Amino acid sequence: MEFSQMNREQLSALQASLRDQYESFKQANLNLDLTRGKPAAEQLDLSNALDGILEGFYLLQDGTDVRNYGGILGIPEARQLAAAFLEVDASEVLVGGNSSLTLMFNYIDHMLPTWRKDLSEGGTERLKFICPVPGYDRHFTICEHFGIEMLNVPLLDGGPDMDQVEALLRADPLIKGIWCVPKYSNPTGHTYSDAVVDRFAKLADIAGAHFTILWDNAYTVHHLEDTHEQLKNLMTTARQQHTQDSVVILGSTSKVTFAGAGVAFLATSPTNLKTFEKFLSASVIGYDKVNQLRHVRFLQDSQHIAAHMVKHRNIIKPKFDLTQQILTQHLAGKGIATWTQPRGGYFVSLDTLPGLATEVIRQAAAIGVKLTPAGATFPYGVDPSNSNIRIAPTFPALGSLQRALEVFVVCLQLVTVNHFLSDQR
Amino acid sequence: MEFSQMNREQLSALQASLRDQYESFKQANLNLDLTRGKPAAEQLDLSNALDGILEGFYLLQDGTDVRNYGGILGIPEARQLAAAFLEVDASEVLVGGNSSLTLMFNYIDHMLPTWRKDLSEGGTERLKFICPVPGYDRHFTICEHFGIEMLNVPLLDGGPDMDQVEALLRADPLIKGIWCVPKYSNPTGHTYSDAVVDRFAKLADIAGAHFTILWDNAYTVHHLEDTHEQLKNLMTTARQQHTQDSVVILGSTSKVTFAGAGVAFLATSPTNLKTFEKFLSASVIGYDKVNQLRHVRFLQDSQHIAAHMVKHRNIIKPKFDLTQQILTQHLAGKGIATWTQPRGGYFVSLDTLPGLATEVIRQAAAIGVKLTPAGATFPYGVDPSNSNIRIAPTFPALGSLQRALEVFVVCLQLVTVNHFLSDQR
Repeated sequence: MEFSQMNREQLSALQASLRDQYESFKQANLNLDLTRGKPAAEQLDLSNALDGILEGFYLLQDGTDVRNYGGILGIPEARQLAAAFLEVDASEVLVGGNSSLTLMFNYIDHMLPTWRKDLSEGGTERLKFICPVPGYDRHFTICEHFGIEMLNVPLLDGGPDMDQVEALLRADPLIKGIWCVPKYSNPTGHTYSDAVVDRFAKLADIAGAHFTILWDNAYTVHHLEDTHEQLKNLMTTARQQHTQDSVVILGSTSKVTFAGAGVAFLATSPTNLKTFEKFLSASVIGYDKVNQLRHVRFLQDSQHIAAHMVKHRNIIKPKFDLTQQILTQHLAGKGIATWTQPRGGYFVSLDTLPGLATEVIRQAAAIGVKLTPAGATFPYGVDPSNSNIRIAPTFPALGSLQRALEVFVVCLQLVTVNHFLSDQR
Repeated sequence: MEFSQMNREQLSALQASLRDQYESFKQANLNLDLTRGKPAAEQLDLSNALDGILEGFYLLQDGTDVRNYGGILGIPEARQLAAAFLEVDASEVLVGGNSSLTLMFNYIDHMLPTWRKDLSEGGTERLKFICPVPGYDRHFTICEHFGIEMLNVPLLDGGPDMDQVEALLRADPLIKGIWCVPKYSNPTGHTYSDAVVDRFAKLADIAGAHFTILWDNAYTVHHLEDTHEQLKNLMTTARQQHTQDSVVILGSTSKVTFAGAGVAFLATSPTNLKTFEKFLSASVIGYDKVNQLRHVRFLQDSQHIAAHMVKHRNIIKPKFDLTQQILTQHLAGKGIATWTQPRGGYFVSLDTLPGLATEVIRQAAAIGVKLTPAGATFPYGVDPSNSNIRIAPTFPALGSLQRALEVFVVCLQLVTVNHFLSDQR
């Protein structure tokens, strides 16, 4: 029964029952965490062969000794692997250190002087980025770091609201970029449609100079179902439109091998790559080529990556299934929450009724279940409707996940029923 | 016999003989390189046990799984190792990725907003750094990248000319830092004296606000002799003077384990470390903790590091000896060059007569021997006296090194004799 259909008596009875459950959880002294999209230990175990895989062989085909200094673009073998991973040409790829976030940060840093030329001398206007929401908090942190103003655009099922994106770009040439997680999006799990990708490839023609699409393809091989969602190739599409200089594609093996010790990839046009390499040369002698070679030996090619990702899926699919099961069992048909059913990626995105997310998270925290802070999926940490909650089911063991979700659904119902009762007062 | 004592006839005869030797080298189609301070392959072999050393154990004493995300300051075990390495407290240390250069770059980047507050609005003055010369080109590149003006101060046998350093700082509060390689300096091999270190510890009292000493202790354990040069501990000394916030000490295992895949260290006051960690959090989720743990297991402690460095010394000492032998044999007593005899580090620094370095390097390159470009050891690539040449003997095999040096001394003599002959014209 929908909460909105209940009378005061029914709501009060439900409230009492939920309070009882809440109190019993409190007695249990829980300490559970649904916050970060981290792989579980069993997932990390899948890649333990990385350490020791080189067996004393450190020379590349071209004679390079990976143990020594040098080479900013990465070893050719790793660039080839990254090219297969990101579906681009090896000449378009830089293979970096253990973090694509650092590459994004560096790339924006390297564009700033170019972008700033469009600011009027002594003016107060700021550079701006479009942020499809909900999105990834660390993208937004980079913009905040550089003083780049962020403009929210809703993320729909098939990608950002492109009418809004285009209208904003037409109106303001100081919008210099857009953040995207185009496949199995963080946090909603949505994949951009072909039509949306086609429109992305044309954005540079509408936008001000040096518009940059940060296409963070973090979950490109992270499927949860037999049927994989397909993301149209932005680089190929952009090349047809001669807008390839606006495209920067990112990825990493963070959720393929070791989350803290993988390798990161950045792909862009060879023109951009050249200036970016020059920029990096002041701060980088070369990335860890030994670890790049380990990854080449371990992941080999697209086929081996796919087989490896099936092993990940076997570990995390039951957690996503359990999440759907508990959310459905306790929340479906009550008109109090909607949530996504991702076919890949690392998250489930849930929306409470407007205004309730903060209180749900607070109540859960009070009895030992940590959730991502309300607003974290929005620029400046502000969710205008205070309703979005990101659930990260991969890290906890199944038992802990179940317990944490059971607490969560009680908190959500309790806060909602309290809300209805106070409304009727 | 000194060239300056020779008459025209003697010089011409010498010139003819040197030209013959030069021509015979030309026939040999050499391809030799004395440019970069890279470890030789046999040195890298000393650390091959790193790959595979973890044997499947990835958990730290505090329960951290090094394969997963998180932790900017580095794993406690690595901070402890770095503390022993840099002779500071573990609470003062950050353990980073594979490059101390990147940490230096990041540290300066993080200080810039603070330093810039001292610039007058709309003025044309720039932030400045003092650069003891000759020095390390990549330090200077970082200053160029950020538009920081560089002021040369001569590096004497016991450290920079401190009278000049102090006079500059008294005169100009916009001097915000100084670059140092205080032990077995790049390129001269000199170690700063205790008296110089004492004066460094007091610089913050003379300088403008937020003055920063970048103390790049890259060669702290890189001895070539039984008797090790001792560098007085700057952090301890500065703490006594309450100037510890001006101290940033850097180091890495680049020339201890793998040059491209080691771990880097930065030590500064806990106050500074806190703001630096916050700055990094926008671009860094965490450095490669797996590689940090590998290094902890492999290097263990100061004693093991010292034993490991003896193995390095056994490989490179003969190369330094050969260098001294050839330089002495062909150049001593001729009044045409001076050079250093380092007791540690990676370089020999040679000075030609003023104005001749570029031509010596050009002549050597023309017959296949690559030397570090003239001026590289000076800010902006400009050696005012055009005389300094950095020789890096570690990377080539002994035979190649001998050949390259034999070519070098012929080129140096030929250019010098040409110079004397044209002077007498």
